[in-house]
Amino acid sequence: MKNPCTATLLIKCQDRAGIVQAVSEFLYRYGANIVTLDQYSTEPEGGQYFMRVEFAVDDLPNVFDNLEESFSHTVAKTYQMQWQLFDNAKRKKVGILVSKYDHALLDILWRWQQGQMNCDIACVVSNHDDLRQAVENFGVPFHHVPVTKANKAEAEAQIHALMADCDLLVLARYMQILSPEFVSRWEMKVINIHHSFLPAFVGADPYRQAYDKGVKLIGATAHYVTAELDQGPIIEQDVHRVTHRQNVVELRAIGQDIERSVLTRAVRWHIENRVIVTGNKTVVFN
Amino acid sequence: MKNPCTATLLIKCQDRAGIVQAVSEFLYRYGANIVTLDQYSTEPEGGQYFMRVEFAVDDLPNVFDNLEESFSHTVAKTYQMQWQLFDNAKRKKVGILVSKYDHALLDILWRWQQGQMNCDIACVVSNHDDLRQAVENFGVPFHHVPVTKANKAEAEAQIHALMADCDLLVLARYMQILSPEFVSRWEMKVINIHHSFLPAFVGADPYRQAYDKGVKLIGATAHYVTAELDQGPIIEQDVHRVTHRQNVVELRAIGQDIERSVLTRAVRWHIENRVIVTGNKTVVFN
Amino acid sequence: MKNPCTATLLIKCQDRAGIVQAVSEFLYRYGANIVTLDQYSTEPEGGQYFMRVEFAVDDLPNVFDNLEESFSHTVAKTYQMQWQLFDNAKRKKVGILVSKYDHALLDILWRWQQGQMNCDIACVVSNHDDLRQAVENFGVPFHHVPVTKANKAEAEAQIHALMADCDLLVLARYMQILSPEFVSRWEMKVINIHHSFLPAFVGADPYRQAYDKGVKLIGATAHYVTAELDQGPIIEQDVHRVTHRQNVVELRAIGQDIERSVLTRAVRWHIENRVIVTGNKTVVFN
Amino acid sequence: MKNPCTATLLIKCQDRAGIVQAVSEFLYRYGANIVTLDQYSTEPEGGQYFMRVEFAVDDLPNVFDNLEESFSHTVAKTYQMQWQLFDNAKRKKVGILVSKYDHALLDILWRWQQGQMNCDIACVVSNHDDLRQAVENFGVPFHHVPVTKANKAEAEAQIHALMADCDLLVLARYMQILSPEFVSRWEMKVINIHHSFLPAFVGADPYRQAYDKGVKLIGATAHYVTAELDQGPIIEQDVHRVTHRQNVVELRAIGQDIERSVLTRAVRWHIENRVIVTGNKTVVFN
Repeated sequence: MKNPCTATLLIKCQDRAGIVQAVSEFLYRYGANIVTLDQYSTEPEGGQYFMRVEFAVDDLPNVFDNLEESFSHTVAKTYQMQWQLFDNAKRKKVGILVSKYDHALLDILWRWQQGQMNCDIACVVSNHDDLRQAVENFGVPFHHVPVTKANKAEAEAQIHALMADCDLLVLARYMQILSPEFVSRWEMKVINIHHSFLPAFVGADPYRQAYDKGVKLIGATAHYVTAELDQGPIIEQDVHRVTHRQNVVELRAIGQDIERSVLTRAVRWHIENRVIVTGNKTVVFN
Repeated sequence: MKNPCTATLLIKCQDRAGIVQAVSEFLYRYGANIVTLDQYSTEPEGGQYFMRVEFAVDDLPNVFDNLEESFSHTVAKTYQMQWQLFDNAKRKKVGILVSKYDHALLDILWRWQQGQMNCDIACVVSNHDDLRQAVENFGVPFHHVPVTKANKAEAEAQIHALMADCDLLVLARYMQILSPEFVSRWEMKVINIHHSFLPAFVGADPYRQAYDKGVKLIGATAHYVTAELDQGPIIEQDVHRVTHRQNVVELRAIGQDIERSVLTRAVRWHIENRVIVTGNKTVVFN
Repeated sequence: MKNPCTATLLIKCQDRAGIVQAVSEFLYRYGANIVTLDQYSTEPEGGQYFMRVEFAVDDLPNVFDNLEESFSHTVAKTYQMQWQLFDNAKRKKVGILVSKYDHALLDILWRWQQGQMNCDIACVVSNHDDLRQAVENFGVPFHHVPVTKANKAEAEAQIHALMADCDLLVLARYMQILSPEFVSRWEMKVINIHHSFLPAFVGADPYRQAYDKGVKLIGATAHYVTAELDQGPIIEQDVHRVTHRQNVVELRAIGQDIERSVLTRAVRWHIENRVIVTGNKTVVFN
Repeated sequence: MKNPCTATLLIKCQDRAGIVQAVSEFLYRYGANIVTLDQYSTEPEGGQYFMRVEFAVDDLPNVFDNLEESFSHTVAKTYQMQWQLFDNAKRKKVGILVSKYDHALLDILWRWQQGQMNCDIACVVSNHDDLRQAVENFGVPFHHVPVTKANKAEAEAQIHALMADCDLLVLARYMQILSPEFVSRWEMKVINIHHSFLPAFVGADPYRQAYDKGVKLIGATAHYVTAELDQGPIIEQDVHRVTHRQNVVELRAIGQDIERSVLTRAVRWHIENRVIVTGNKTVVFN
């Protein structure tokens, strides 16, 4: 679905008049055709400003570095922008961490196989060996890295090495808490699926918590992982209606459907460069 | 929509074989036709059992007392039931408490006027005088009962007196916290609409909390009022999708649409005797 | 919610490189700050191109005519645009046509009263007198224009006269079919709410049709009115889940909730200049 | 999730007083504990009556035949019931027909593998060989039965033979129209997923039709197959919101998510004996 000759520019800066003009004029001088342009300002004037521009340029590979360099010295400097430029022909490398539940993992792999996920799946790492066959059926490398209290640092080092060239880690129901050290090396590059509608039901066994509370909707939340458990910037959430009739086992089954679709959407938006983090929140241009 | 000659029986007891048989045989002896029957057991056998039966009997008004008395000595006794029997021709009396927001109030009054709410609206009480005209347009009495820190007990006494013959109080965005004394006199007879998806965002200004947290869905929760703020049994909840673009004012406007539909459904289920409270949860037969 | 000094520009043309640049540079020369910018192209290059820009300019009232004139001779000419420019301080005048059902009417009037609809409600016209009081309670003029087979042309002339200075007519469940002559005078300026999920259930009594068909969702559709009944460009649709249990009367009640929210959204998008018609479809920038 | 010692009774008859009593008394005499009981009547009295009872009996395998025989001569006869009794320990045999799209097929197979579908998957038949590996990965037999205009009758005979002992055929995007002869041999035993919100967009390429019409929601419909194409009793439907931005390819991708969840639910309800067909509609007790 991606044109191989497009690039995406993400911008964050103070809102001022003239930003669209400056960016579009800059791109126009490179002969770019703007494919999509989204912008958002927290306040009409003087707020935080966010922009996402996807543009097509002939012969992009030869132009890219020059364009990036030039933008840095001109528009980005003038408006004191934080910004990133992505060549959409360079697919992001994604590593997946999983334990025993396969629902979220399989949904991502299947969509990836269908061409719905514009990324490469580098490998899948699990602290159990159960899902090896399912992963290898997709032609994706599988690594079993057991984690115990004793070997945790070592295991994380091993994961880090296996994932070293990844742009994104996806925790597709990975039942180990990553250490602050690990997380800090992958800042805003780890997406987790939490099986509740956060901030409700932080912590262990949220479906049990939801059952005990008697809520009428259960949900799931995809968020970037930060040092504070279940507190990172939320990318996507969804819910499903339940009644008193569902027991905890049935809530889990319903929840899995929510989890897989929420995680898939969040990962897709990240790899399509649609997410900008601001403070502990996200701006999602989708 | 209600047949005037129907009654509704609500039952809670330990699950045992033969309950449906016993109840339906009992009713059959009175010539009753079962209109709807719902049942739920927390576990296949030996769990908590809940039942709702709506049945039609010719000449119900003359039969009702005898049927109730008889049920008490026979089936209810055998199965050690907690139970309630309602003559559906006797419409529940509902009192509404409101402050300045009119959205939930007007939705209930409009549906009531349309014949969608099978109850009588006894009166509306507010701590402000703003909504008098809107309420009186529906032909419903309006009472202004100002509440201050100083006069709170007195004001509650006044409300209690005005609502004395009501079967249900509805807090349609009533911005005063009812005292534990008041609440205990109206146990499981006060329904509140909280403007968040509980248990997320307990307390004040939940739309501000939701905005600050960056959630992707906002919600509302209708629950019975207990002494513990925002912690009573949940009757109904719903949510609506939002994005980073909505500010707090817009979240409030979107939230009002959720609040009014959630509260209306909860009130309707209560007056149609569809809600059974068990512990801090509800069984809703809808 | 609208800044009084903003204007909205709607554009339709052939897609070519440089449009964003040309428009934003043009606006920049007027000192405009772009508040929101949306664009859409049916194909990456060479398709139909659509744009909506909302921008703020100091002293807009004094600049507006000059800006409009200038745009016409420059950018609009270069790109052969079909375009419209709206001063957002000039609220659109809306006339409402209704018969006996009040649900959609009241929802619009209530939101208008709350300040959620950035328009003036010029008047309400009905072929019945039933809703006079309800309308006048909002301080809005009500006109009773009976329609019979015999007087239809005359009645439409009367409606036309009453609505003459309106920018938009809203059929909030108006149970008369407007003549092709009337419709042609109000091209893409009449919004109707049809009580089904079009194109399913065109014509009379769609809830009966839905019941007979046994669909599991019922819906409503807001569309511009064209000479062909129920076939105009769709602006908004929504649905609600139903089961075999709902009879036609209950479907109607559920449907009314969908109708009012769908119509309100469509009207709001129109008056906020978010809708561009293209062929028999709409582009909605919301 | 199913207790192996439960049975399900489905009943259709004229509504009369005493049915619940008669059925529950009958079951009580067999020492049955009613696990769930649902009933529905098209009208309060004298309408069509439908009932689903799931009950547990000790030593069901030894009692089943006797119970069935006895019911036939007593309650069923008295009330002139059409009825079916199912031993829930005997899992239904399901055959799946598919062409090249795998989304619906894989979702069913995965849920079946998870234990979420209480059935046996007898085999998968396809008119293409593409999905052989995917199916065999689940340990399910795969048969390639090519279909051409010339060999259609023969191919259908082959399918019929392969599926001979199945209780249900599922068309999980099978792109061949079954002959009336085939359909008549499998009356109300073939479930198809149609990729539109029926009755909108009957026939070929419904996502193209939806795109051309500019609808704001797309949907899918699971229905029993009858001789008349896309007209059989609807079991389940669902929709998803789209905008002008989605092209036909994207509508298809979104639609696949709806198709798989709608078909899965319909199949699950059928194998759990939750669906009763009445005329061209369904009563679904879920």
